[in-house]
Amino acid sequence: MALPVPNGYEPLDESGVRRWLATAPSLAARLGGRPDDWRISEISDGNLNVVYAVTGPAGGVCVKQSLPYVRVAGESWPMPLDRTYFEQLHFGATGAHVDGLAPRLYHYDPQRYAIAMELLPTHQILRRGLVDGRRYPQAVARVAEFAARSTFATSVFAQPFEQVNPRLAAFAGNLALTRITVDLIFTHPYVVNERNRWTAPQLDATVRGIRDDATLKAAAARLGHRFLTKHEALLHGDLHTGSVMVNDTDTRVIDAEFAIYGPIGFDLGLFIGNLLTAYFSFPGHAGTTDAQSAHGEWLLGELEVFWQTFRRHFETQWRAVRAGDGFPSALFSSNADEQAFALERERWFDELRLDTLGFAGAEIIRRIVGFAHNLEFESIADAVVRARLERRALGLARRLVVAPSEFRDFGVLAASARQLATAAETA
Amino acid sequence: MALPVPNGYEPLDESGVRRWLATAPSLAARLGGRPDDWRISEISDGNLNVVYAVTGPAGGVCVKQSLPYVRVAGESWPMPLDRTYFEQLHFGATGAHVDGLAPRLYHYDPQRYAIAMELLPTHQILRRGLVDGRRYPQAVARVAEFAARSTFATSVFAQPFEQVNPRLAAFAGNLALTRITVDLIFTHPYVVNERNRWTAPQLDATVRGIRDDATLKAAAARLGHRFLTKHEALLHGDLHTGSVMVNDTDTRVIDAEFAIYGPIGFDLGLFIGNLLTAYFSFPGHAGTTDAQSAHGEWLLGELEVFWQTFRRHFETQWRAVRAGDGFPSALFSSNADEQAFALERERWFDELRLDTLGFAGAEIIRRIVGFAHNLEFESIADAVVRARLERRALGLARRLVVAPSEFRDFGVLAASARQLATAAETA
Repeated sequence: MALPVPNGYEPLDESGVRRWLATAPSLAARLGGRPDDWRISEISDGNLNVVYAVTGPAGGVCVKQSLPYVRVAGESWPMPLDRTYFEQLHFGATGAHVDGLAPRLYHYDPQRYAIAMELLPTHQILRRGLVDGRRYPQAVARVAEFAARSTFATSVFAQPFEQVNPRLAAFAGNLALTRITVDLIFTHPYVVNERNRWTAPQLDATVRGIRDDATLKAAAARLGHRFLTKHEALLHGDLHTGSVMVNDTDTRVIDAEFAIYGPIGFDLGLFIGNLLTAYFSFPGHAGTTDAQSAHGEWLLGELEVFWQTFRRHFETQWRAVRAGDGFPSALFSSNADEQAFALERERWFDELRLDTLGFAGAEIIRRIVGFAHNLEFESIADAVVRARLERRALGLARRLVVAPSEFRDFGVLAASARQLATAAETA
Repeated sequence: MALPVPNGYEPLDESGVRRWLATAPSLAARLGGRPDDWRISEISDGNLNVVYAVTGPAGGVCVKQSLPYVRVAGESWPMPLDRTYFEQLHFGATGAHVDGLAPRLYHYDPQRYAIAMELLPTHQILRRGLVDGRRYPQAVARVAEFAARSTFATSVFAQPFEQVNPRLAAFAGNLALTRITVDLIFTHPYVVNERNRWTAPQLDATVRGIRDDATLKAAAARLGHRFLTKHEALLHGDLHTGSVMVNDTDTRVIDAEFAIYGPIGFDLGLFIGNLLTAYFSFPGHAGTTDAQSAHGEWLLGELEVFWQTFRRHFETQWRAVRAGDGFPSALFSSNADEQAFALERERWFDELRLDTLGFAGAEIIRRIVGFAHNLEFESIADAVVRARLERRALGLARRLVVAPSEFRDFGVLAASARQLATAAETA
């Protein structure tokens, strides 16, 4: 049963969206013409919410509304409405820092838990493009830039804690979606749970193996604990390839309703994990081995692009801004100080790399044996092929979770992925 | 200039305390007799607040009130009143778990920022007792138990994050006292600041050396960043030997107004650091070398007692409670799971030990060259003797901050402290 809803809340169907937009002068003006002129189509893609694209004679608007349940699960999985509140709060906290890397927020209606934002009519979901074998030369780097700018700006590297703590406190209230992360990423995939799905019967033994893998479960628990206690910066919280919209020249990160303070490696790891699922799944889609190979190599190269771009943007800000309480600038003035500070940054990035690799592994596992699966594997019709590719991804994922320090950089990660894919192919 | 105060706030002098208690029936009943019968004496000891001991025919009450400035600094150092609010909030969050290890809270007056709590008329401050060469066989272990119980109960080891996050959010508002910690522990001792004091001119060169020690400053900055971002549990926040009241049979931890979520090693490190200052300072107080040696050896032995007692209490609860989202019990059922979980705990305690040692070093440094000094060094009248002993403590402190992994256990720490003290003595 869905949760009771507050007074004034109504789920917006197409005519509801039309009425709602008509009562907001700034949105109506943006669309132009009269309400009857507006074309409205549902474009819901994520698991949770309803999304509409609205176009009028003068322009477009994207409308997103929370339902009192999980959209793809239906009313049997109730879900508080406040996730749209946290998404607009993330817009407010990061918008000035990620201009051009996320849609613009136009309007938030706290009564209907509805957001109106920039419509991106020529963009498509990055995940779909990757499944189709398309390459977007800037997309991965732009997502890395989004992660670097949004996390740095909200951290104690950039700000006194007096500015960070109130935001930390506000996002600590994002309980419903944090519960999803805790359960669906860090717990359910490792135990018997009715929401788990996998390619059966082909992966049945693999799934039993995961449930019996004490070392893996202990390492996953450690990651889950880190997610809940290492509050470095405001995370997007769900930064996978389905949360990115692209066209040939532009990249935008959407859907920050999971936003919460946490370890920065969680955002990075989710994205890296999804690049790896794109890589491992691609042989199930591509026509020729040549096409497989070229697309796969591009994806593997993007692992390093993502990391280096993140690091470059983050470190540039860290060296320049120096206004926060984390590594306060007062302590570093002489040349020797600057060298010691550079070593500390190196040490911090090393730890971030380990976090990132671990969370990437956890993301891969939960997307194959947990509740929420990825298009790239799901759309492989042949279960035998799908299971074979999923098993390769799980093999790498386990090593990422259990022994991330084996991967001293993202070139080593790419080589390991390639080896798993090709050795298996020729075996 | 002191900050403006809210309506209804008045600083309570002795007659104010008498009137205030008279209007609270439960407190008046606890004291017994008539208000004129009550004996009121100021017993302020900490740096921030005013404290009164009140006794009547039937019993006693301790009254503590915030002033709109730092008591020992005067009105030139304004300070918001809300620190008493956070102290009573800490009572509320931990009281049920530390019964008999802290005073009982009787009453909180949000208008006057005043607390009435259990009076401990036969207790004295542990720090003073240690300076006098007294030994309290249970005290250090009881403080360790306090730390273990209060931090465990408020962590995601013990509770679902839905119960932890609102508390984390509330204490994230304790900005004024967190600013004191950030400045006075992690920043000012390493730079030129008007609030710093040290034994001059004997330590002038040592202080310059600290300001020029890039490696030390970088490591201190790393600890400061960890303090602000590693939110494992609700800390006491100021757990030094001056926050402990003892008599021969009873130990109570007081003064939790610095309470905030942070790394558990911060609480442990402050206490360890103060045991070490007690050790290094004692030759400046004791009459004979024999007395020095016996008291010093007792103090060094208490380092291990403190750690092992903390660890035993914490781990016992961790193994038993299993109700939180940190290392959720669902993941650990088989014998192999239990072994993997035991290894994770080992790993967690290893990291806690390193945090503890680092924070202990930072605490020693700030108590010798920063604003807030310790009685044990301050009360050594001979500046030459004092400086010699302080320099030994600083020598160990630097190693603790820069290279905590050199100390694989608290026996090694004790041996290092002993070596510094005795080698210097015979040099």
